[in-house]
Amino acid sequence: MSAEIICVGTELLLGDIVNTNVQFLAKELASLGIPHYYQTVVGDNPIRLQEVINIASKRASILLFTGGLGPTPDDLTTETIAQLFNTPLEEKPEIIEDIQGKFAARGREMTDNNRKQALLPQGATILPNPGGTAPGMIWQPIPHLTIMTFPGVPSEMKRMWAETAVPYLKSQGWGKEIIFSRMLRFRGIGESALAAKVNHLFNLTNPTVAPYASVGEVRLRICAKTASEAEAIALFDPVAEEIKKIAGLDYFGQDDDTIAEVVGKLLRENQETVSVAESCTGGGLGAMFTTIAGSSDYFWGGVIAYDNRVKMSLLGVKSEDLAEYGAVSDTVAQQMALGVKEKLGTSWGLSTTGIAGPEGGTETKPVGLVYLGIADPDGKVESIECRFGDTRDRSSIRYLSECTALDQLRRKILVR
Amino acid sequence: MSAEIICVGTELLLGDIVNTNVQFLAKELASLGIPHYYQTVVGDNPIRLQEVINIASKRASILLFTGGLGPTPDDLTTETIAQLFNTPLEEKPEIIEDIQGKFAARGREMTDNNRKQALLPQGATILPNPGGTAPGMIWQPIPHLTIMTFPGVPSEMKRMWAETAVPYLKSQGWGKEIIFSRMLRFRGIGESALAAKVNHLFNLTNPTVAPYASVGEVRLRICAKTASEAEAIALFDPVAEEIKKIAGLDYFGQDDDTIAEVVGKLLRENQETVSVAESCTGGGLGAMFTTIAGSSDYFWGGVIAYDNRVKMSLLGVKSEDLAEYGAVSDTVAQQMALGVKEKLGTSWGLSTTGIAGPEGGTETKPVGLVYLGIADPDGKVESIECRFGDTRDRSSIRYLSECTALDQLRRKILVR
Repeated sequence: MSAEIICVGTELLLGDIVNTNVQFLAKELASLGIPHYYQTVVGDNPIRLQEVINIASKRASILLFTGGLGPTPDDLTTETIAQLFNTPLEEKPEIIEDIQGKFAARGREMTDNNRKQALLPQGATILPNPGGTAPGMIWQPIPHLTIMTFPGVPSEMKRMWAETAVPYLKSQGWGKEIIFSRMLRFRGIGESALAAKVNHLFNLTNPTVAPYASVGEVRLRICAKTASEAEAIALFDPVAEEIKKIAGLDYFGQDDDTIAEVVGKLLRENQETVSVAESCTGGGLGAMFTTIAGSSDYFWGGVIAYDNRVKMSLLGVKSEDLAEYGAVSDTVAQQMALGVKEKLGTSWGLSTTGIAGPEGGTETKPVGLVYLGIADPDGKVESIECRFGDTRDRSSIRYLSECTALDQLRRKILVR
Repeated sequence: MSAEIICVGTELLLGDIVNTNVQFLAKELASLGIPHYYQTVVGDNPIRLQEVINIASKRASILLFTGGLGPTPDDLTTETIAQLFNTPLEEKPEIIEDIQGKFAARGREMTDNNRKQALLPQGATILPNPGGTAPGMIWQPIPHLTIMTFPGVPSEMKRMWAETAVPYLKSQGWGKEIIFSRMLRFRGIGESALAAKVNHLFNLTNPTVAPYASVGEVRLRICAKTASEAEAIALFDPVAEEIKKIAGLDYFGQDDDTIAEVVGKLLRENQETVSVAESCTGGGLGAMFTTIAGSSDYFWGGVIAYDNRVKMSLLGVKSEDLAEYGAVSDTVAQQMALGVKEKLGTSWGLSTTGIAGPEGGTETKPVGLVYLGIADPDGKVESIECRFGDTRDRSSIRYLSECTALDQLRRKILVR
């Protein structure tokens, strides 16, 4: 008894879009304890789609489809599935009514294109789509095989999943034994260095420990399949404690904790506030702080000082220092951090200035050279030189600058 | 003769990461004209991986693998492929040397874990990884089947693809007849409304026209397979012209044009500058402008006025207006836009203030209510009320606020 995810869409084969739907569904299946071993992407082509369904229906008992439910002629998922199982389509009047109502609410009229969205195979149940005009279906075409279809638009798919699919799957007995996992997250250490330190834990079988690397971050996932969360926690805790002791300050959080959340929590606990002065990140550091709902408790704002005139007029950076050291320098990073802290009256000031590339690098100041400034509540200011260059592109350099600035602030708050 | 992409990694099945690798490779295959009909994801499990390779090797002549080349025990891709084709592994001394050199350059020592990365099946060629320690391979285990492996780290994979895989595929004769495509991009109109307007074009066969929708944007892809780009352009131009005439101002750009690039280009052409005053977007609008290399020509910076004190002290928003109308209002959006334009001395000022949620909404000011302010070069200021709420989450509301602010500036620049 396992599930498979089949994503339909020529746009996925052409690389026009990133497939975030499959990640969402994968996570959800894992949390319900539904085993899931394969994901397949196929284009809007009935013959190849039928082949994929043939293979998957022999391996799995639940098939989740995304995409191909829209109003346009290349949307073929429903009719292809129906054909494969030799079942005629029938028009569902309640779908027509629902679509007409949605168009009317926006002051528009339903187009003829939308009519095909009301066709489902005989015997299928409507999987309602409250956020859009493309409903899905829940259908058992043969014994021991359940098909669920979702549109490709992520927000619509997610809501349909949560409101209808999850309750349905739970009613079928899923979600009783669950895969629990805890992800421990690290910064400032590489994957193989961390792996070498905790190598002895990779042989554990219950729970298991496995490493993952991504840009600027390493993770260790602890995983167990148990009947209750309490049992899982009892397995996780001693392993997690050992790992945290080994990693020290390089450990920053677990599961969905982002570095921005972790820093925000520390600021809130200390009843402190922060402001930002951004050059190379251009607003991205502020955007990262404010991703977190409720960040207005500790994040007051800042200055995007992309142009040197703004560095001088709003942050008090000295023109002679800009001339002598350049905008990308320890001195300017420090003046920016102190300037924004004073101007906005926050406890901390955090700044970024660097060369994000691809142009603008020199021999002494290559692309990827970034200075981060931190002004602390006592008015002391420090800066950190980072070299993110080498092989990295503009967006990675900016992203690493933002995350590293947050991580440096975290370390400062913890060990001042 | 077609290619398939097989991504190996339990982290993909667990939904820990988004699979951006497959999008990159899909786009690259399309541009080389290599047909590609299936993508499969499978976990770090040798039996299931072998099953996937069995199926794929019957359908395709090129198999591209990502993931499972790392130093840890769950990295099994190379040895599983070798086993399936009954070929022993052999240690490549040049890989050991390369890994040792890379560790030495960072002042570290190679760990024993890394030694397995030097094992390749007999007869395979090294696919060098200049950016990391996990090399891939190019291998023809049987006639008419080429296997290429890449690590899962996107930056390493991309560089290996560009530097070694593409030249290899071209040497095999690929890249002669190519699928050309042009993507036309629209804002301010829904998918079915646009589809209804250009319905007659969906029956074309050469080129073809197909619609795609994403958050806040609709796209039409025009596609043709020809021997030369000139032939493709001759097919595309009349269709694109007709569509643009139908869509008017809702058309904003094509292919990789982002709304930030399009606006930046207009500003540069007009020799005008812009600054931003951000509340609900918290820096994201500035980050969007500065995603573009060279944006310092027209983007000077701005003020992140997340806290009302910053709105008053740095942007001159009046405290009595904050009290009377609230921070989320036409009045405050206008004062913010005008304030930042004047403070920084730019031609245009652009502001955002709204309720991104999930908390903070009221009956009269629900989550998703956003005001965008635009101050023009003559000092005239306007604001636009947007309601992005309904079903959208915080990050979508912020993203739509940023894109819509840019799009409104685009329309103002074009029709003032």
